[in-house]
Amino acid sequence: MLQNQKIEPRTLQGFDDRHGAEMIVRNHVKNVWEDIFQNFGYSAIETPSLEYSEILTGKYGEEEKLIYHFEDHGGRRVALRYDQTVPFARYLTQHRNLIVLPFKRYEISRVWRADAARKGRRREFYQCDIDIAGTDSMMADSEILQVLYAGFMKLGFAEHKILLNHRKLVSGFIQSLNISQEQAIEVYRAIDKFDKVGQEGVKKELLDRGIQSQFIPKILEFISLDGDNNQVMLSTLADLVKGNELGELGLSELKEIIEICAFAGIPSQNIQISPRLVRGLDYYTGAIFEVVVDGFPGSLAGGGRYDGLCGRFSNEEIHAVGVAVGFEPLCMLMTEKKMGPKNTAPADLFLVLFNNEMKKDVLHLAQNFRTKGLRVQVSYEASKLGKQFEKANKLGIPQVVILGPDEKARGVYVVKNMETGEQKEEKIPV
Amino acid sequence: MLQNQKIEPRTLQGFDDRHGAEMIVRNHVKNVWEDIFQNFGYSAIETPSLEYSEILTGKYGEEEKLIYHFEDHGGRRVALRYDQTVPFARYLTQHRNLIVLPFKRYEISRVWRADAARKGRRREFYQCDIDIAGTDSMMADSEILQVLYAGFMKLGFAEHKILLNHRKLVSGFIQSLNISQEQAIEVYRAIDKFDKVGQEGVKKELLDRGIQSQFIPKILEFISLDGDNNQVMLSTLADLVKGNELGELGLSELKEIIEICAFAGIPSQNIQISPRLVRGLDYYTGAIFEVVVDGFPGSLAGGGRYDGLCGRFSNEEIHAVGVAVGFEPLCMLMTEKKMGPKNTAPADLFLVLFNNEMKKDVLHLAQNFRTKGLRVQVSYEASKLGKQFEKANKLGIPQVVILGPDEKARGVYVVKNMETGEQKEEKIPV
Repeated sequence: MLQNQKIEPRTLQGFDDRHGAEMIVRNHVKNVWEDIFQNFGYSAIETPSLEYSEILTGKYGEEEKLIYHFEDHGGRRVALRYDQTVPFARYLTQHRNLIVLPFKRYEISRVWRADAARKGRRREFYQCDIDIAGTDSMMADSEILQVLYAGFMKLGFAEHKILLNHRKLVSGFIQSLNISQEQAIEVYRAIDKFDKVGQEGVKKELLDRGIQSQFIPKILEFISLDGDNNQVMLSTLADLVKGNELGELGLSELKEIIEICAFAGIPSQNIQISPRLVRGLDYYTGAIFEVVVDGFPGSLAGGGRYDGLCGRFSNEEIHAVGVAVGFEPLCMLMTEKKMGPKNTAPADLFLVLFNNEMKKDVLHLAQNFRTKGLRVQVSYEASKLGKQFEKANKLGIPQVVILGPDEKARGVYVVKNMETGEQKEEKIPV
Repeated sequence: MLQNQKIEPRTLQGFDDRHGAEMIVRNHVKNVWEDIFQNFGYSAIETPSLEYSEILTGKYGEEEKLIYHFEDHGGRRVALRYDQTVPFARYLTQHRNLIVLPFKRYEISRVWRADAARKGRRREFYQCDIDIAGTDSMMADSEILQVLYAGFMKLGFAEHKILLNHRKLVSGFIQSLNISQEQAIEVYRAIDKFDKVGQEGVKKELLDRGIQSQFIPKILEFISLDGDNNQVMLSTLADLVKGNELGELGLSELKEIIEICAFAGIPSQNIQISPRLVRGLDYYTGAIFEVVVDGFPGSLAGGGRYDGLCGRFSNEEIHAVGVAVGFEPLCMLMTEKKMGPKNTAPADLFLVLFNNEMKKDVLHLAQNFRTKGLRVQVSYEASKLGKQFEKANKLGIPQVVILGPDEKARGVYVVKNMETGEQKEEKIPV
């Protein structure tokens, strides 16, 4: 070992150290979702970070190139997971005999994508997922939206909108234009770029992808449909897919989901049908949805029904619907808008050490505060008091506790409020 | 995509799916430690799963071969982290200008080691770490032991023992035998195998590693020292290192740590000096410790002072002391001994759906229970009631709630205790 040769301390591009106030926000967001998930009766599961490469390939469409693959010590082709959904489908089929269906699970953990790194797009990030497997009931699709509504309300996004669409509705519409199934996937991918490139951009994408120009005005009309009134939107869409079995099925499921959401108390202004929402991933088959808020580009959650995914691993088809909350954009937005917890200090109290003879008394007092649930730091050095106060101040700890020989003789300690400078005495507990 | 070609759903050897009661125990253990860490004023940080390979190499002695290295999309040599300590040292030096010292952090996350997989030794597992950087005060070393004591007590291990030793004490002793510094590291590694191979095994290891036979009886005598009375042990050790500066320094630090732990209320029977404890990792420089409990082979936590580690990344030396709680053995042991939470059901209540006309009322009632903090599942199907009860039973949900048209007419719902069969009526809240 060449101990004197210094290694430059640095992180890989797209990978982050996180600390301080940022971690306080992250833990807050994580705890809110975890509470809500448990509140709705979801169970925690964990799947490994590494999977056999073959488990992940062929599931993510054009994004598949972003998967980190490598060869392990035993010569196996392995891959870091790209999301938590494909591993969940693998999990379901692998442990099928142990699982009571319908099965509701949540998972909040890291995923990896070798994407072009920039602000808001990192190579390692958290996903925050729930899924319901084993039912095709629209009660399940609606429950996912109820969970989203509950979580975003709890986090302070009263104005959030759940955008809702249905793959079968879009497929039915495309089918009714007599576009082939192979071409349909190209239409999806073009529409998926709407938010980035706008209507003109989609038009160009459609042409580039070989869609015949006669279809394009109708497609553009469909994806331009917009409106706050879901009932009006439903009847407009009903006209567009009239007579197409697939489209009508999709529409009736959409209707049912919206009805159940209303039963569950989601205000209609928080749900909006959006025909141009398609979501890029290959595996969706039914309802699809995203959560957006004004002033933030991109979505804060995205998901849908993927009834075909488990069939990649097993002959038994298992219906499934789920959502991934965009943990990273959500934390970023809440940090920027200062929507996180106000108290970001590492402790509530800082106990100074007047001199080394006071160690026992100070440590005893610290333990007493801790049993009351307070977060307590104790000074490690009996340095000058001013220096110890400065330390507490730098850390933003709101209160400092002084217990010196004089205080001890009087059976008290002093609490100093670091913001106001106010001091008060309290009795030392026995 | 060959959708019809099934991929066998399987996990890599040494990597685990976790669910059900196991996850309940894991979350419980995680929450207990997180609460204790925050109680002692530690801040959460996160470092990436992937680091430049050069950050990790040369830090782990013989274990280094277990690191997962690979080349990323940009041709960089990268590695999955082997522990959380080396990345923490990298973090400290990289962000030195942002950090107020002493700095206390915790991190509970995954690490990877390409080890021979077997029960209790997995290739992916959680570590649960705290570290204090920027002080050489024995108050810090002692605080780590206070945190361990608090956590293991909270988890129900009243009889746990913190084994304590000091690298300088052992080094001083070896020095006093006139063993060279190069050979000393071989002595450490031999002693480290004591728990696996016993005294005779260590003797053989020492010979194999080229230690001259005249030293061996003295080394064996040293590592056989054992005893519950720390004061007796301290004076025995004082005789053994008398006149050796390094050994005496180590011993005086040990004494101070033990004294401060007593001040902080750790009973003396929970701390035991163990001269044969050396811990394999290259980077320890001062106090070292492990937590053991009767009837469990191996340790439930391990750590120590590593004042030299940051010097690998920077010219500034930053003192540091920390511990990794053995999250995995701890969860395994608690699961086996049924020491985890009793209630392992995914929900407290299961609301049956009498018929589809009752959806609105049932969903409304569910939301009401949830706002009271109850964990609630709602049936997705208005199937036969018996089938719905069976579902709740299979999931172990203790209470089922029935709200059918008759109940609604009377303004009540029925709660059935699934264990006793007892039923009672409650008023529907407005």
